[in-house]
Amino acid sequence: MIKDRHITLAHGNGGRYMRELIEGVFVRHLANPALDVLHDAAPLALDHRLVPYITTDAFTVQPLEFPGGDIGSLAVNGTVNDLAVSGAVPHFLTLNAIIEEGLAVDLLDRVVANLAEAAATAGVKIVAGDTKVVPRGQGGGLYLATTGVGLRDTGCALGLDAIRVGDAILVSGPVGDHGIAVMLAREAFELKGAVRSDCASVLPFTAPVARFAGTHFMRDPTRGGLATVAHEIARASGTDVHLYEAQVPVRDAVRSVCEILGYDPYYLACEGRVVAVVTPETADDVLALWRTLPHGAQASRVGTIEAGRGRVVLETAIGGSRFLEELEDDPLPRIC
Amino acid sequence: MIKDRHITLAHGNGGRYMRELIEGVFVRHLANPALDVLHDAAPLALDHRLVPYITTDAFTVQPLEFPGGDIGSLAVNGTVNDLAVSGAVPHFLTLNAIIEEGLAVDLLDRVVANLAEAAATAGVKIVAGDTKVVPRGQGGGLYLATTGVGLRDTGCALGLDAIRVGDAILVSGPVGDHGIAVMLAREAFELKGAVRSDCASVLPFTAPVARFAGTHFMRDPTRGGLATVAHEIARASGTDVHLYEAQVPVRDAVRSVCEILGYDPYYLACEGRVVAVVTPETADDVLALWRTLPHGAQASRVGTIEAGRGRVVLETAIGGSRFLEELEDDPLPRIC
Repeated sequence: MIKDRHITLAHGNGGRYMRELIEGVFVRHLANPALDVLHDAAPLALDHRLVPYITTDAFTVQPLEFPGGDIGSLAVNGTVNDLAVSGAVPHFLTLNAIIEEGLAVDLLDRVVANLAEAAATAGVKIVAGDTKVVPRGQGGGLYLATTGVGLRDTGCALGLDAIRVGDAILVSGPVGDHGIAVMLAREAFELKGAVRSDCASVLPFTAPVARFAGTHFMRDPTRGGLATVAHEIARASGTDVHLYEAQVPVRDAVRSVCEILGYDPYYLACEGRVVAVVTPETADDVLALWRTLPHGAQASRVGTIEAGRGRVVLETAIGGSRFLEELEDDPLPRIC
Repeated sequence: MIKDRHITLAHGNGGRYMRELIEGVFVRHLANPALDVLHDAAPLALDHRLVPYITTDAFTVQPLEFPGGDIGSLAVNGTVNDLAVSGAVPHFLTLNAIIEEGLAVDLLDRVVANLAEAAATAGVKIVAGDTKVVPRGQGGGLYLATTGVGLRDTGCALGLDAIRVGDAILVSGPVGDHGIAVMLAREAFELKGAVRSDCASVLPFTAPVARFAGTHFMRDPTRGGLATVAHEIARASGTDVHLYEAQVPVRDAVRSVCEILGYDPYYLACEGRVVAVVTPETADDVLALWRTLPHGAQASRVGTIEAGRGRVVLETAIGGSRFLEELEDDPLPRIC
């Protein structure tokens, strides 16, 4: 560990303090043969029979720690999951940390430890990184940005352009847990701690399903939630997306908080769920597989791709229907 | 362009406002066939006879615009240069933008336009990106993070471990311009604007020199400057690094500001210079080549690797010598 209890601007100046921060916190948790802090760039050992994919994400969640995860586990899983839903297997990550002067070193240490654990669980190596320190009052304590490189089979043809009318829409588990968990952790509600984030790698869900010929598209419903994924599908494919209210799994605690505060769970972020669009013949196989996995028991067929013109329709539990509009400037819990 | 004149939190929520920000600013400037904003991850077309290298960097410079560059050109050139000094040719970049609520859209637009121009100059494509909006008071207007992927010849053996006693140390141009330019732009000094940042791609300097058999190591002297690079060399190779004060190019304006404010130019950041460690026989060839390039006229042999034990010694112009200590918590202009 470094000697100081709080981060100072000197930890960002390129000299001894910065070296001690990097060695004492980042290297201590993240060391692996592929991470060489003495070089400006790191080589990537790639299997050239597969196609390399890259993705990137910034993480600005408040608070930095919440039930079920923290900004460290989120920064790994968010990027791992973007590769996973693309049908790629993640191999390498790079990490940027923008640290606010005054951040407690203990907190930073916990976050980097959880980041390391999430990386080990997902089977990815941190190969390069950078830290910057910004003055007090110019950051939210800690912002992270991760970039992931993964490999995908040349035969994999997942994509929005593969979606067909008649396809089934599946989700791998209850929606909205992350959005509500983070909101409750930030606000001083009585319900604090009632919901845990679903923050996790979705690789166990995506890796086997990416190989099914009937799998057309996968996405993780993060910012904007299930409704926003439905809008991306509808807009890109020129279809209507029909969702069945009675089939979308939502935990009772999430539903209660939404009712009290006026949130719509379909717009709330998940960080460990997958939305898949598959042929109707494939749907049962995918659901059967998902339901055997941890956190997959509530996997459900939640909708259908129908001919139309880019709308998202919610068929309600009482037999009516309403449009789910594209998210505008809505009262949503800010989660990133 | 987007309709709003300032960024709001709604531009970060995953819905229509965010889509308009991405399409109206980022895609408008950065669009290329490899950037598909509809996918979670982008494929990388790599030549598998070469070795892929990756690097990452975060950018938190204040002010966002300064004479000679801005945070956008810096975010491209900083990452391009980390690959370049590793002997790799940069091909792909990913981009994260953490935007503070209230940032002027016009300013963001200028920055992204300059970022696009710097990417085109360096021959790199932006293939993936992410934007986040943080509440007013939790950011410095705009933070960027870029990750670069480049390709290096399998025969290239540049590295700290290749450095030998007797090697010559070269710099490609005057040191400290960036550090002083940013500091003057931030503070209300009379000298404002007297120095321009050297922010630029160093690829024209590194690409030919990486192929010379006598080139052992290259680095760009950014945070911590020439002295910090010298310390990295001395520490990693267990040698003493001798620098010759009379040979290190420093612009008169930079020297004047340093004298007035008590800065040491050897610790000031450059963003468009290269330090190279080469065999004595190669030094003149490298210098001759560099001096033909724009911004290379003052390329100079500034030091020698000597047997020793990890020290950095400055041989002064008047015939004495002093140790250049590793940067601690020193009075330096904050440039990132």
